[in-house]
Amino acid sequence: MIRSPDPELDLTMARIIKAPRATVWRAWSDPTRLERWWVPEPARCKVIDMDLRPGGSFVTRISEGGGAFVPHIDACFLAVDELSRIVFTDTLVAGWRPAENAFMTAIITLSDHPAGTEYAAHVMHRSGADRKMHEEMGFHDGWGTVAGQLARFVEQTH
Amino acid sequence: MIRSPDPELDLTMARIIKAPRATVWRAWSDPTRLERWWVPEPARCKVIDMDLRPGGSFVTRISEGGGAFVPHIDACFLAVDELSRIVFTDTLVAGWRPAENAFMTAIITLSDHPAGTEYAAHVMHRSGADRKMHEEMGFHDGWGTVAGQLARFVEQTH
Repeated sequence: MIRSPDPELDLTMARIIKAPRATVWRAWSDPTRLERWWVPEPARCKVIDMDLRPGGSFVTRISEGGGAFVPHIDACFLAVDELSRIVFTDTLVAGWRPAENAFMTAIITLSDHPAGTEYAAHVMHRSGADRKMHEEMGFHDGWGTVAGQLARFVEQTH
Repeated sequence: MIRSPDPELDLTMARIIKAPRATVWRAWSDPTRLERWWVPEPARCKVIDMDLRPGGSFVTRISEGGGAFVPHIDACFLAVDELSRIVFTDTLVAGWRPAENAFMTAIITLSDHPAGTEYAAHVMHRSGADRKMHEEMGFHDGWGTVAGQLARFVEQTH
């Protein structure tokens, strides 16, 4: 199910990462690695639950300014294609149960690129209003920033 | 991802159907067959879209009392395990996009039974209030009635 982004409803970002796909995949799929780049620094991230298969739980928390860890993502994986694609949504929680606070579905794709890996996120909303809210909340800064952190993390360590 | 139903949040039904699993599966997965039993008679059903794979669209319409066909289900398939399980949700629409009107996820399972097939539905809600609303809307009559129609349809035709 690859569909073109709908400019009225979706937000997208992409970045070239100078590391092989397998390295980027590992930085995403291993909770201790994901914690290193998943929230914008200097905030810190904890992965509470990460069951990387369709219907599996995906729960992260964030600590900002040294404060307590508070809810960040409470979502459900929808599709997991080794080395190439991860789809998750916060409209569902573990076991595909409908969520209280539903907002988006994200399709993350990794593809080969002459310089390493093209990392892309396609984030879908139910309405133009939700898309606009996400944009105003800082989608481009937020997702762009953490993709930059991911790039630095894997470019240093692989 | 098989989880036990949560009695606070879920509704379930099950029925023995005197036909092989393959026959029941065909009655579910073939749109022209699904239309024969998917809504309580004498209402009529039209399958508008049925792309039976994860992320695929599932859209049906209903006509009651001879009136126009109106929206019935607008959902997205989440998991499709040939001959044994279909998971769909109306919290998402085609391509996993968040839906405007989110309510439930349904897990349909077919299992072997000495008399033929055990047909079961496990319907998950986000809250006890949604579960109660679904029960009061006639879950047991509705899902029970159409499972009975499914049974009669496949028991006659297989």
